[in-house]
Amino acid sequence: MTDENLDAFRARIQARVEAMLDELLPPTKVEPTRLHEAMRYSVLGGGKRIRPLLVYAAGEAFGVTPTLLDRPACAVEFIHAYSLIHDDLPAMDDDDLRRGRPTCHRAFDDATAILAGDALQTLAFQALADAPGLTASKRIAMVANLARASGARGMVGGQALDLAAAGQVQDVALLEHIHIHKTGALIRASVQMGMLAHDDPDAHQSERLDHYAKCIGLAFQIQDDILDVEGDTALIGKTAGRDEILEKATYPALVGLNEAKAMADGLIADALASIAVFPEDRARPLRWIASALLGRTA
Amino acid sequence: MTDENLDAFRARIQARVEAMLDELLPPTKVEPTRLHEAMRYSVLGGGKRIRPLLVYAAGEAFGVTPTLLDRPACAVEFIHAYSLIHDDLPAMDDDDLRRGRPTCHRAFDDATAILAGDALQTLAFQALADAPGLTASKRIAMVANLARASGARGMVGGQALDLAAAGQVQDVALLEHIHIHKTGALIRASVQMGMLAHDDPDAHQSERLDHYAKCIGLAFQIQDDILDVEGDTALIGKTAGRDEILEKATYPALVGLNEAKAMADGLIADALASIAVFPEDRARPLRWIASALLGRTA
Repeated sequence: MTDENLDAFRARIQARVEAMLDELLPPTKVEPTRLHEAMRYSVLGGGKRIRPLLVYAAGEAFGVTPTLLDRPACAVEFIHAYSLIHDDLPAMDDDDLRRGRPTCHRAFDDATAILAGDALQTLAFQALADAPGLTASKRIAMVANLARASGARGMVGGQALDLAAAGQVQDVALLEHIHIHKTGALIRASVQMGMLAHDDPDAHQSERLDHYAKCIGLAFQIQDDILDVEGDTALIGKTAGRDEILEKATYPALVGLNEAKAMADGLIADALASIAVFPEDRARPLRWIASALLGRTA
Repeated sequence: MTDENLDAFRARIQARVEAMLDELLPPTKVEPTRLHEAMRYSVLGGGKRIRPLLVYAAGEAFGVTPTLLDRPACAVEFIHAYSLIHDDLPAMDDDDLRRGRPTCHRAFDDATAILAGDALQTLAFQALADAPGLTASKRIAMVANLARASGARGMVGGQALDLAAAGQVQDVALLEHIHIHKTGALIRASVQMGMLAHDDPDAHQSERLDHYAKCIGLAFQIQDDILDVEGDTALIGKTAGRDEILEKATYPALVGLNEAKAMADGLIADALASIAVFPEDRARPLRWIASALLGRTA
């Protein structure tokens, strides 16, 4: 039954987010068409929408009306999509496959991919700035939050640390430091969007939810590393075994596959425990998301 | 005497902006140091700060306190700096020289340049979101304005149009369309920042100032094209004759050098006429900036 409910929640949010993203993205009939096509290609038609799911799940924990979360959910997804486009570039990870399709620079060209990523980052902030239903104070708090999470002290900083450390990460502490920034910061920001949409969120609940987000973010990354070792390229939608080729440090490489799985499980248990401060019915989506990570295959 | 006053205004604003940019940029002592170095390298120590000058000049026309303009001025400059880094990349214009020094990807590497540009865009929005002294409404209006000006419908869209049209622009209308987006949008946004910092800007003055910005933006671009033909690499700080190598359409190539100069002069006269709606003393910096374009050599 739990699985069914998660599936229904996921399907509802994914459909909702897909429609909103489509509406916010520039149409391909308008010039510059190639840029707009590249933006739409990279954002639409795929993606698990984990970050939007977390936005709505956190919002539900605080009892926030879902309509207030549409723009924040799209904003974090635009940031995520832009980061994938730039990460896949030849100058970066040089990957050919993403979400089971050619990466943006393979489907278009490097210049278009750079610009599509740039424009998607801008669109994230524009989506928040124009968000209907939210006060200016809330919108600006969200802009500040998203900027902090995705800039030099957050996601982009993590990507730079990752590049700098390639082939040289010897301990879990440094690897964790990289991931806390590279993927963790945006996942925390996604959860905080749900909180920032509330008029007066409880401080203790907010702190516990932030802890949940930290645990989920790290567990998600460990699972990603495990999938890269164990996964099937067709199933995960990107090239399996890519981390080893790029000489990237991974949890399985540093601590072994079993220990990596145990770490992920421990983090998920911690995440689940930390959201006990919320009314049980309202915290269900947050629990589903955490629980789903346990049995994650893609 | 006029020149002296412009010089004093310029020196005062440049010093003010340089200090603010330095303060907002992440320090090189903090990891990831290479990313932070690349960001600082690209933003600091050079640049004419035309866009910040326009922010303060427009603010003065409306009688806005300069301290309210510090963050908006830095924000437009961060956007400008990020766009230069990405435009210079091998996948784009592939240029080696900028502001008389190696371009970011030559001084560092392509991956670092991509990330430095990404982080500078983020920093622009963060600078606005955290701006002291401005209400949340003003800050969010500025975020919305800057996002619109710099995204797919603005600067990035113009860059995409420019790339798509390389070697094929046959008429001035298309060239103008490209520049209105590629450089014009951010120049308009800079001027609008000065207006948006005011509590209740006069609608007619705002409209006339926007016209000034459009004229200045286009005149500036025509001058840029002229400098690329006539200029000295050492003086303009970037590789002269680059447009021809890249087969980029320019005003001198399409209409001839004399006609291009006449167009620029006409636009500047139009710009000067349109700001007659402001008190004469408060509009002086706007007049200086427009007049300086007439005799521009770098």
